[in-house]
Amino acid sequence: MDHKLPDISQDFAAWYQEIVYAAQLADQSPVRGSIVIMPYGYAIWELIRDRLDERIKATGHQNAAFPLLIPESYLKREAEHVEGFAPEVAVVTHAGGKELEEALIVRPTSEVIIHSMFARWIRSWRDLPLKINQWANVVRWEMRPRPFVRTTEFLWQEGHTAHATKEEALEEVLTMLNEYVDLARNYLAIPVVAGIKAESEKFPGAERTYTFEGLMQDGKALQMGTSHLLSQSFAHSFEMKYQDQNGNVAYPWLTSWGATTRLVGAVVMVHGDNKGLVLPPRVAPIQVVIVPIVRKGQDNSAVIDAVAKIADRLKKHGIRVHVDDQENLTPGAKFYHWEMRGVPVRLEIGPRDVANNCVVAVDRLGLGKESLGIDRIEDAVTHLLNRVQDTLLARATERRDSKWYKAAKLADFGPKLDEQPGFYQTGWCNSPACEEKIKEFKATTRCIIDTKEFSQCFACDKPSVHDVLIAKAY
Amino acid sequence: MDHKLPDISQDFAAWYQEIVYAAQLADQSPVRGSIVIMPYGYAIWELIRDRLDERIKATGHQNAAFPLLIPESYLKREAEHVEGFAPEVAVVTHAGGKELEEALIVRPTSEVIIHSMFARWIRSWRDLPLKINQWANVVRWEMRPRPFVRTTEFLWQEGHTAHATKEEALEEVLTMLNEYVDLARNYLAIPVVAGIKAESEKFPGAERTYTFEGLMQDGKALQMGTSHLLSQSFAHSFEMKYQDQNGNVAYPWLTSWGATTRLVGAVVMVHGDNKGLVLPPRVAPIQVVIVPIVRKGQDNSAVIDAVAKIADRLKKHGIRVHVDDQENLTPGAKFYHWEMRGVPVRLEIGPRDVANNCVVAVDRLGLGKESLGIDRIEDAVTHLLNRVQDTLLARATERRDSKWYKAAKLADFGPKLDEQPGFYQTGWCNSPACEEKIKEFKATTRCIIDTKEFSQCFACDKPSVHDVLIAKAY
Repeated sequence: MDHKLPDISQDFAAWYQEIVYAAQLADQSPVRGSIVIMPYGYAIWELIRDRLDERIKATGHQNAAFPLLIPESYLKREAEHVEGFAPEVAVVTHAGGKELEEALIVRPTSEVIIHSMFARWIRSWRDLPLKINQWANVVRWEMRPRPFVRTTEFLWQEGHTAHATKEEALEEVLTMLNEYVDLARNYLAIPVVAGIKAESEKFPGAERTYTFEGLMQDGKALQMGTSHLLSQSFAHSFEMKYQDQNGNVAYPWLTSWGATTRLVGAVVMVHGDNKGLVLPPRVAPIQVVIVPIVRKGQDNSAVIDAVAKIADRLKKHGIRVHVDDQENLTPGAKFYHWEMRGVPVRLEIGPRDVANNCVVAVDRLGLGKESLGIDRIEDAVTHLLNRVQDTLLARATERRDSKWYKAAKLADFGPKLDEQPGFYQTGWCNSPACEEKIKEFKATTRCIIDTKEFSQCFACDKPSVHDVLIAKAY
Repeated sequence: MDHKLPDISQDFAAWYQEIVYAAQLADQSPVRGSIVIMPYGYAIWELIRDRLDERIKATGHQNAAFPLLIPESYLKREAEHVEGFAPEVAVVTHAGGKELEEALIVRPTSEVIIHSMFARWIRSWRDLPLKINQWANVVRWEMRPRPFVRTTEFLWQEGHTAHATKEEALEEVLTMLNEYVDLARNYLAIPVVAGIKAESEKFPGAERTYTFEGLMQDGKALQMGTSHLLSQSFAHSFEMKYQDQNGNVAYPWLTSWGATTRLVGAVVMVHGDNKGLVLPPRVAPIQVVIVPIVRKGQDNSAVIDAVAKIADRLKKHGIRVHVDDQENLTPGAKFYHWEMRGVPVRLEIGPRDVANNCVVAVDRLGLGKESLGIDRIEDAVTHLLNRVQDTLLARATERRDSKWYKAAKLADFGPKLDEQPGFYQTGWCNSPACEEKIKEFKATTRCIIDTKEFSQCFACDKPSVHDVLIAKAY
C-alpha cells in the first residue's frame, strides 16, 4: 500500500482524488456518480453527525423520517422548486412488477413531502412553531462527480420548520446558520464565511438563502451548507392554513437548512498535506495511535503491558485510541500508514521509554517530538490534542486570510482568478447583468457579506449596494 | 384529541392501526405503503438503534454506507436471490432527464452491492474477517402494508461479514442472533424464540436462516429479525477470491443479519393495552412525565420551583423527563394524554406534596400509587422504572407461555389456530409436502427449535426430525 501522492501544491485535484481512496475514506462504486463511504470515512461522518444532532436537538428540533419516494406531481406544486430540481432527479417508473400510474421521484430534497405533512399537522397557532429534522439520503443526478464534494447520492440532515411570523422564521434561519458556523469552526477547524446568496444562487423556491463557505487550499470556495427562508408560495401550494390567535386564517412562514457528507470532503481539502490526511482531533476517528517498539526474539512483555495500560487509561479518559500491534509491519511502515490517515497524535513506546516511565509523542503537524511522563499521560495527551486542534484552526485561518483579496473592478481581478485563486471581495450594484460578467472568468458570487468597503459596483458605474465575495468554486 | 380506541381484546388489528396514529408514532403518507415516522415513534427507534449500534460496534463491526441504487444486472448474479426479490423491487428507469442505459433498482437489501465491493477489498487471508454494518433505508413493494410491521420503505441495519471458514461464519451468525435476542429481552422486554427457518422461509440465497420471533397479544407471531449463513454461491457469483495462508485461491464464507423499524411495531403489539401504548422504560423517549398540580389565581411558585428542581435532578441522573406545564389543559387531560403515549411513570406534584417534601408516583402498569420522598427521588424513580421494565418482561413471558401449545397432529391443532392462536409446538419430518398442509389453516412454520419432544411428524407417519413452531404470523 505504498501510495505516492501527487504533490498537493502542484495538482490539488489529483491529490484529493488520490488521498480519498488511499486513506480509505471512500471507494469507487459500480453506480455512476456514487461512492461507497468506507468505515474510516464513515466514522468521520458519524462524529460530525453526532455533534450536529446534539445541536439540532438542543435548539428544540425533533427528528422524524419521511418517505424516500415522492409522487412526481408533488414536486410540480411549487414552480421555482420543480424548475430547479426536475433536471437532476432519478425517477421510479416501475415497481412490484408493474408500471406505476404515477411516477415517483427519489427525493432530491424533502420540502414537498414534508410540507404536505405540515399541512395536515398545523391546524392552530398552538401547533407552531413546528421544528422537524430528518437524517436521510438524497439523490441528485450528477454530471461531474467528485467524492464527498459532489456525488449522485449523499447523506445529509435537512431541517424543516414552520413559524407564525416572518421574523421568527428568519431568527430560526440565522440560529441554524450560526450552529453550522460554530460546528465548522470548533470541530472541523474550518473558519467559514457566512453570508447571503445572490438571487441566481438561491435555493429553488427560497426567498433568501444563507450560506457558509470555506476556502480550500487551492483557493477555491466550497459551499459547506445552507439555511433558507422559504418563500410563502410553499405554504400556499400545500394549503398549509391554520387559525391564528385572533381566529383568522393564516399561512406559516417556513425554513429549511441542511449540511451533508460534503463536510468530510471539506476537512480533507482544508487540512491535508503531502503526507496525506490531517484530521482535527475532534472529528478524528482515531485521535491517538500507539505503536509499540518491540524486537523479535526478545522479551517484549514490559512494553506490551505498558501499551495496554496506557491505551486503557486514555480510553477511560474519553480519548479515541488505537494500538497498532500488527506483527508483520515495521514501526516505520506503521508511522507512514497512520500519517497518511491523518491521526493527530502518535505515541511510540519502547523498552527504554518504559524504563524511564515515559513515552515519545509525535503530532501530525510536526509541532515537535516530545517525551511525555506516563504518570500524567491523560493530561499531557489531552493538552497535545487541543494544541493540534487550535493550531489547525489558526493555520486554516491564516491560509484563508492570505487568499482573501480586495479589488474594486472585475477588469483588474478577473484575470487573476486563475493564477491567484481565492476570495475576491468587491462592491456590487446587485444587478444580475453585472453578475453575469463574472462567468467569463469561470467564477461565481459566493455570498453577500455585511461589510461595505466599496462605493462602486465591480462591473458598472453604479453605486455598490453591498460587498460581495467572488471566487471559483467547487 | 379524544380518541376512543377499539378494544384490544376484541379487535386487535383495529386497535393497532388506531393507536399508532393516535399516539403519533406515525402518520399516513401520500406514498403507497409508506409511512411518516413521527418524532415520538422516531425517538423510540433512535433508542433501539443506539443500543443496537453499540452492540454491533462492541462485537467488532464497522459502519459504512453503500449506494441506494443498484444496477439491475447485479441483482441477477445470484439466481435464488433475484427470484426472491425481483417481484418486489422499485426500478429507476430515468434520471438526469434521460432514459438510463441500464435500469437501477432501489435496494431491497444490499448483498449484491456490498459483495461486489467485498470482491475488491478481500485479496488475502489478512483481510479476513471483514465485518461491516450499514444503517439504511430499503424499499420492498408491499401489497398489504401495516405501519412499522410491513411498509414499502423501512429503516434497518444490515450486517455483512466475510470469514475464512464456515465455522467462523456460523459463529458470527449466532453471535449476532444472540445480540438481537438479548436486545429484545433486556430493552424491548420481549421474550423471543430463536430458531432456524424451514427451507421455504429462508432468505433468498441463504444456506441457513436463523430468526427470532415474538408472540403478539393476539397470538400471532412476528418475525423480528434474521441472521443468515449465506450460501457460497454469492462469493462465487461475485468472484470473491483471495489467497489463503497456504497461498491457495479460496472463497470466503459470508453472513448477513438485519433488524428493522418493525421492532417499534413489536413493542406496541406486545405491551399495549386499552389505554394505549405501554413503553418499556429502556426504550421510552419520555420515562417520567411530571404534572404540576396548580390552581388558577393562586401563588403556585412553590410547586413550580419544586417541579423544576426535581426534573433537573432526574435529568442529571440520566432519566428522560418531560414536564407538562401546559396551562390550557386540566391534570386529568394530561394524565390521559401521557397514558395513551405509554409513559412508564407519572409524577404529580401539588402544594400539599411540596409541603410534605414528597411527590405522588403513578406507574403505567397500575402497580400502585406511591408517595415518594423528594430527598431520594432519583433512587426511588430509578427503582420504579426498573420495576416497570421487569414487570413488562414477566408479563410478556407469561402471556407468551400461556399461548404456547403442544400438539402432536395437525388434524387436532389446525382447526384451533383461528380461535386459539399462538405458538403450536409439534414434531416434523422436515418434508415440504407436510409443511404445505399447514397452509390450509393460513399458518406457517415459524422456526425449528432445538427440542425434540415429539417422535412423529405432525402430518405424516414418519419420525420427527426436530420440533417446529407453527403459528399464524404477520
